[in-house]
Amino acid sequence: MLHYQDEDLSKLTSRYRANLINSCTGYKSLNLIASIAGPQFTNLALFNSVVHIGSNPAMLGFISRPLTVRRDTYNNIKKNRFFTVNQVNETIYKDAHHTSAKYDALTSEFEKTGLTEEFLDNFKVPYVAESSIKIGCEFVNEYTIEENGCLLIIGAIKHIYINEGIVSKDGWIQLDRANTISSVGLDGYALPKVIDRLAYAKPHEKTNSLWHES
Amino acid sequence: MLHYQDEDLSKLTSRYRANLINSCTGYKSLNLIASIAGPQFTNLALFNSVVHIGSNPAMLGFISRPLTVRRDTYNNIKKNRFFTVNQVNETIYKDAHHTSAKYDALTSEFEKTGLTEEFLDNFKVPYVAESSIKIGCEFVNEYTIEENGCLLIIGAIKHIYINEGIVSKDGWIQLDRANTISSVGLDGYALPKVIDRLAYAKPHEKTNSLWHES
Repeated sequence: MLHYQDEDLSKLTSRYRANLINSCTGYKSLNLIASIAGPQFTNLALFNSVVHIGSNPAMLGFISRPLTVRRDTYNNIKKNRFFTVNQVNETIYKDAHHTSAKYDALTSEFEKTGLTEEFLDNFKVPYVAESSIKIGCEFVNEYTIEENGCLLIIGAIKHIYINEGIVSKDGWIQLDRANTISSVGLDGYALPKVIDRLAYAKPHEKTNSLWHES
Repeated sequence: MLHYQDEDLSKLTSRYRANLINSCTGYKSLNLIASIAGPQFTNLALFNSVVHIGSNPAMLGFISRPLTVRRDTYNNIKKNRFFTVNQVNETIYKDAHHTSAKYDALTSEFEKTGLTEEFLDNFKVPYVAESSIKIGCEFVNEYTIEENGCLLIIGAIKHIYINEGIVSKDGWIQLDRANTISSVGLDGYALPKVIDRLAYAKPHEKTNSLWHES
């Protein structure tokens, strides 16, 4: 078993350390966040830090890196309040990765990739047409993580669009039917396969599978 | 394409809405967090909200649900400051799920499952012996999300233990070699397979794969 202590971590090269720390916590969600700098200026960026905040009211959060360099997504959301969260699937993960290239603030990553802007229901910010699950959000709040300057951005979910055929009758989404990608560290991409759903756990009772009944 | 607007969401049954909102943001990490109520009292609970906060210093975060009911993990961490984060793999996901059953505060979920306490290097809190990746953390800070009372807990990474054979030479961890599980919503479990690693993205250049070189 390999063992890294905190003082070992500080002596690693920054690249090794970043790879290790980013991948040791497990598979992460992978979403493209679209925002606008103004009516004609769209922006698209890849995030692996979207987390569930609440269901009622429906809210999600994501971590923005510290504002020590220009952060287009953060600046756009603070200025225009709306953004969209678009799930990455097997067909588009290479284009999704390319949005992390450093283009200037007014260059749209939609133009530099094969990804397509889709405007729906008068929402000011486009969705990614190729995504099977698209979420329209309004900025609610931000929390600065004092320890390193990262920000937790909270968004209220205003719209959810989901392709037909992947939502179960109880609302659970079978993500592998949409070939949803999950991320490993900073640059790894994985394709999961759902293997089980388990019933609500009760003390002293064996855990049953819901999967073979559905 | 299915479309849910915010007013539709509020009319859904709470179970349907919870399933939908918890699964629409994609695959999530799945970790067992161990804590202690005191020297003889261990606790183990399943979390799908662990996120990367920073690499230098190495920190992670996770979301704790609101304190409207008893939250053993939160209470233990606030009292004793240390906790461990243990990755869930294919062999233990059913036991991991069972830790969500409501046992009383002084009953150890280790005793109620097949999971084994492992004390390493004088750390006060046990790890899960069956996990291939185990992280020892010290509480650093907490942020209350005013919108619904959830808490973002920040931990400093003090120790990382990783099974042999899954760390690449550049520090990236190939999680599928450890059969790491990823979660879908509240009760779904998926087994991912790594399909690619991509090189650092540069403007106007095609994205290359690192995967077939490694």
